[in-house]
Amino acid sequence: MVTGDASLAHPTELPAEFALIDRHFRPLAGGGALGLSDDAAVLMPPPGRELVIAADAMVAGVHFLPDDLPDLIARKLLRTNLSDLAAMAATPLGYLLTVSVPRDTSDAWFAAFAAGLAQDQAEFGIHLLGGDTTSTSGPVSLSLTILGTVAPGCALRRVGAWAGDEVWVTGTIGDGALGLLAARGELADPTGHLAGRYHLPQPRVAFGQRLHRIAGAGMDVSDGLVQDLDHLCRAAGLAAVIDAAVVPLSDAARDAGPQWLERCLTGGDDYELLLAVPPANAAALQEAARATGIAVTRLGDFRPGEARATVRAHDGASMRLSRGGWSHFW
Amino acid sequence: MVTGDASLAHPTELPAEFALIDRHFRPLAGGGALGLSDDAAVLMPPPGRELVIAADAMVAGVHFLPDDLPDLIARKLLRTNLSDLAAMAATPLGYLLTVSVPRDTSDAWFAAFAAGLAQDQAEFGIHLLGGDTTSTSGPVSLSLTILGTVAPGCALRRVGAWAGDEVWVTGTIGDGALGLLAARGELADPTGHLAGRYHLPQPRVAFGQRLHRIAGAGMDVSDGLVQDLDHLCRAAGLAAVIDAAVVPLSDAARDAGPQWLERCLTGGDDYELLLAVPPANAAALQEAARATGIAVTRLGDFRPGEARATVRAHDGASMRLSRGGWSHFW
Repeated sequence: MVTGDASLAHPTELPAEFALIDRHFRPLAGGGALGLSDDAAVLMPPPGRELVIAADAMVAGVHFLPDDLPDLIARKLLRTNLSDLAAMAATPLGYLLTVSVPRDTSDAWFAAFAAGLAQDQAEFGIHLLGGDTTSTSGPVSLSLTILGTVAPGCALRRVGAWAGDEVWVTGTIGDGALGLLAARGELADPTGHLAGRYHLPQPRVAFGQRLHRIAGAGMDVSDGLVQDLDHLCRAAGLAAVIDAAVVPLSDAARDAGPQWLERCLTGGDDYELLLAVPPANAAALQEAARATGIAVTRLGDFRPGEARATVRAHDGASMRLSRGGWSHFW
Repeated sequence: MVTGDASLAHPTELPAEFALIDRHFRPLAGGGALGLSDDAAVLMPPPGRELVIAADAMVAGVHFLPDDLPDLIARKLLRTNLSDLAAMAATPLGYLLTVSVPRDTSDAWFAAFAAGLAQDQAEFGIHLLGGDTTSTSGPVSLSLTILGTVAPGCALRRVGAWAGDEVWVTGTIGDGALGLLAARGELADPTGHLAGRYHLPQPRVAFGQRLHRIAGAGMDVSDGLVQDLDHLCRAAGLAAVIDAAVVPLSDAARDAGPQWLERCLTGGDDYELLLAVPPANAAALQEAARATGIAVTRLGDFRPGEARATVRAHDGASMRLSRGGWSHFW
């Protein structure tokens, strides 16, 4: 909270905050952002579309490791938010970002952070709309608000599963949770696949946009497969039963050994899509997956009963899991 | 980053994060927020209106004092963002909020924080659309994204001042900066006016919405009057000359003594509107101010010259100010 240079004495010198925004964030700004020079962004939303908006925070030491590379931190922040849009079947539009960092944060950190954003802006066709940069006496604290659009009434919701719907999931489950252990050096990761998945989620944006009239309900798996399936159960007032044996694991997760299965089922940071799909739509779902180059796996189904998820082990008995999922709060 | 309760063993028990959202934030959610139960909010923007979006972060120890009351922290956060909308002549619509707090933060803190939000939601006619709650090992870190709307092309911008336009400002200047000193016990504040203005800005939302076709350019004064006037000068490529003697000070700021004048001119946290107004519109500006119950004061004018603000002292000489404004970064 030290003052910038005296702008009256040196009118061309701006406080460090403005120089930093000029150098690193202004190049990321797109239409509507007004070059980040105004108090707010102004944009005309695509006519006849609903807005889809989500905000997620990430704090060093909670959501990422303090030594993680800044470009990967930036991309993970953007991708976890993109995953929220994917879960709603929305098309990304743009984002706002607030960054609170220690005062001794280097210009190189900001440069790498912005380079990560630029890379994923290009990959996902979005741009920066606005934000704020401040100092903090604590760890790096990031918050991102993402905007997307969807045709009216076509947003995928958590509510909407029917008894008889199948439980499907994209990609593989557990890599993020094991990847955190690998990144900390607590689990062998010879190929680097697990740590890679922890650092860089793959939001299912293109696939998500095809889910209208295919999936009846859905969400992204961020707090653990079982806990998140519980959410869909509660929203529907239905039970769900899935088989542990069919939960898709990566080769790296499988190589880690069966003692990690429970962690895969309950760990967080998957950013895959978990869906309720009427059986009649299973073929269309698989076609949408093929068209967007991802895998989908049927895990089980929704049925009348107590609103909770049950995981069946190989012997058909319900697994007793020691936890329901991760919380980034407590 | 400790896990929540095992939701399989106790399916009705959710991790603390969800219980906390249920108790304190869900009651604040309005249309489009989907009860905060989905991955994102979904809303149809008012047809034919442009969206206006801004995001601001606030960190304990930088933007507010760690011991400030949680309801006032919440209201200041909301109001500084509302001030950004006011500066763009926009009508508020809703907001998203991310909250990162130490793990030992009490339920009472959240209750008071939410009560502050509820109070200002009612006052400004907006509601919560979504957000995120996480822990942090550092100070309380807040980020708020606010959405508003404006008729197409009617957003007030920083660019747009013409030579001959008058410099106008709402309310009084310097109370926020002196209020910070008062709140720290470094300045006498017998009436509590100064600390009150520091803790609770008065965003000029109703007045701001009347500025179309009256003001040619504008912004809110958050980093200090002189620095922010410099912004309008740079955007226009014009000089501005204002008279220190006419800068509106509150009785409390005046009572503090003339030695604080410079601090008033360069301190931050005013959240008043600084406007460029063609002389022909001055009467309309004053009428808009009367209609919304606020004061407006003409400080000087824009003129050809080096793009910077000059403050004239009583004797007509340019004041040499030791700083151009506050930065919340360095």
